[in-house]
Amino acid sequence: MSFATRLADAVRRTRSVTCVGLDPRKASLPAPLRDAVSQDRPEEWAAAYTQFCCEIIDVVGDLVPCVKPQAAFFEQLGPAGMISLGEVVAYARSKNLLVILDGKRNDIGSTATAYADAYLGAESPWGSDSLTVSPYLGRDSIEPFVDVCDQRDAGIFVLVKTSNPGGGLLQNRQTDGQTVFQCVAELLTELNSSRQNAEGYGPLGAVVGATYPQELAEMRAAMPHSWILIPGFGAQGGAAEDVKVGFHEGGMGAVVNSSRHIIFAHARPEYADKFGDARWHDAVRAATEQMNAQLDLVK
Amino acid sequence: MSFATRLADAVRRTRSVTCVGLDPRKASLPAPLRDAVSQDRPEEWAAAYTQFCCEIIDVVGDLVPCVKPQAAFFEQLGPAGMISLGEVVAYARSKNLLVILDGKRNDIGSTATAYADAYLGAESPWGSDSLTVSPYLGRDSIEPFVDVCDQRDAGIFVLVKTSNPGGGLLQNRQTDGQTVFQCVAELLTELNSSRQNAEGYGPLGAVVGATYPQELAEMRAAMPHSWILIPGFGAQGGAAEDVKVGFHEGGMGAVVNSSRHIIFAHARPEYADKFGDARWHDAVRAATEQMNAQLDLVK
Repeated sequence: MSFATRLADAVRRTRSVTCVGLDPRKASLPAPLRDAVSQDRPEEWAAAYTQFCCEIIDVVGDLVPCVKPQAAFFEQLGPAGMISLGEVVAYARSKNLLVILDGKRNDIGSTATAYADAYLGAESPWGSDSLTVSPYLGRDSIEPFVDVCDQRDAGIFVLVKTSNPGGGLLQNRQTDGQTVFQCVAELLTELNSSRQNAEGYGPLGAVVGATYPQELAEMRAAMPHSWILIPGFGAQGGAAEDVKVGFHEGGMGAVVNSSRHIIFAHARPEYADKFGDARWHDAVRAATEQMNAQLDLVK
Repeated sequence: MSFATRLADAVRRTRSVTCVGLDPRKASLPAPLRDAVSQDRPEEWAAAYTQFCCEIIDVVGDLVPCVKPQAAFFEQLGPAGMISLGEVVAYARSKNLLVILDGKRNDIGSTATAYADAYLGAESPWGSDSLTVSPYLGRDSIEPFVDVCDQRDAGIFVLVKTSNPGGGLLQNRQTDGQTVFQCVAELLTELNSSRQNAEGYGPLGAVVGATYPQELAEMRAAMPHSWILIPGFGAQGGAAEDVKVGFHEGGMGAVVNSSRHIIFAHARPEYADKFGDARWHDAVRAATEQMNAQLDLVK
């Protein structure tokens, strides 16, 4: 079953469009997990990251369709962190969560194929369902990923319009009336056009930030065959009204990521007193349910 | 001592501008290394990659200033490959080779900082001297890397104009007479301007492919403070005449990468009969010396 179909099924099953970003950071872990690290060694932190992420997965497994582990934080711990990343991906999949691995990888030709094989391939040590990909290197840096998607029913999410303030430097540059991000969107739509599932979605998703609602609406129209991963909700400032324009009818076609606001919810003012570090799982659940309620779009 | 200064010193010491790309691939390893893999397990292949790369380093250690391990091929082996990558980086540094880790990483804000820490930071498990970085996310995706460079005397090489045929899709788009890659070059020059060493070079290097000589010459002029990493020489078609325009006087300011043509030289027609798989080290040496002779630019 194609990645796009599996994602739609997961959204319908959970009646949720929330993607929980798994961004473990040493300093932000709840006190019980931080305190359990007796020696400041990568292996101990990696074990704490695995425990933290897997316990989040236990909490949100029935509440959301997907999780998005951020590779950078696991890579920061070295090979021990990469083992942890594999454990987290496998655990999420065992709990019926789809995994969007956020690695923003890209390269050309056979090197792009190596990245695709590494994270999405038949013998992938990480075995993710999908991967985020950066488009700067052009069409021939995207196609090798698409080939692996075709073979493995995997997906990618290509950066189109990112949520950060500086994203516009390159992405908003306009040539003959078309911006760079519109050009990327056009490429995705073209590559998806021969790869649609019954609902019209292909394996090439797009990343479009919640912080630019007008562009999000425009990109929704420009990429009818793409699932859109919308970061920037919550901690980065995007609101529920902002992201609704990224969806098709019935809450299909997009998932909205929140990382810090969910996984470190115990530190948010509204939850700190009520739950605190000791009951961090309850804070994660409350924050996830709150976000689901804010984005009650699935019909 | 800054990365730019260390690179210049290494170029002068070796009288070479060759960067040897370490791109291990299972199918291309010399037969003696391939045959030593008795079971098709990541750990065994990782050991073969480490041995292959370290033996290349032994051969080229006195001949060239730097090596460029390609992260994708190590990531393909999973955590075992990431351990191998760390071993290769450490071994290269122990032999006085500078390491340009080719990971094309990028992200925003604190996630970019995590990548920079992962590969260049004080507690980096990989401990590279420099890292390749993709610019699609804009200025605030580059600055966190520059901060770590400032703290650690590290360097980055930002993708400007890549060597692949499809690179132009985004990179060549022109707005008000300025292409996307010119815009990236302008950013690098601005960020380098307050960070120059005695010779005028800063920590922000650039990747400009050998396959577009005219743009290479133009980028040389546009980025006076950047070391340029020039891929696309040899196997990808770039010739010696094409890359010379990327240098400053005396052979400073650029290094030229070759991967397959050197590390798999035993399979090249001109070396296959003479050396073959059994004497692959001699083929690596011959190919490196040939490239050094073609690019005899250091005065």
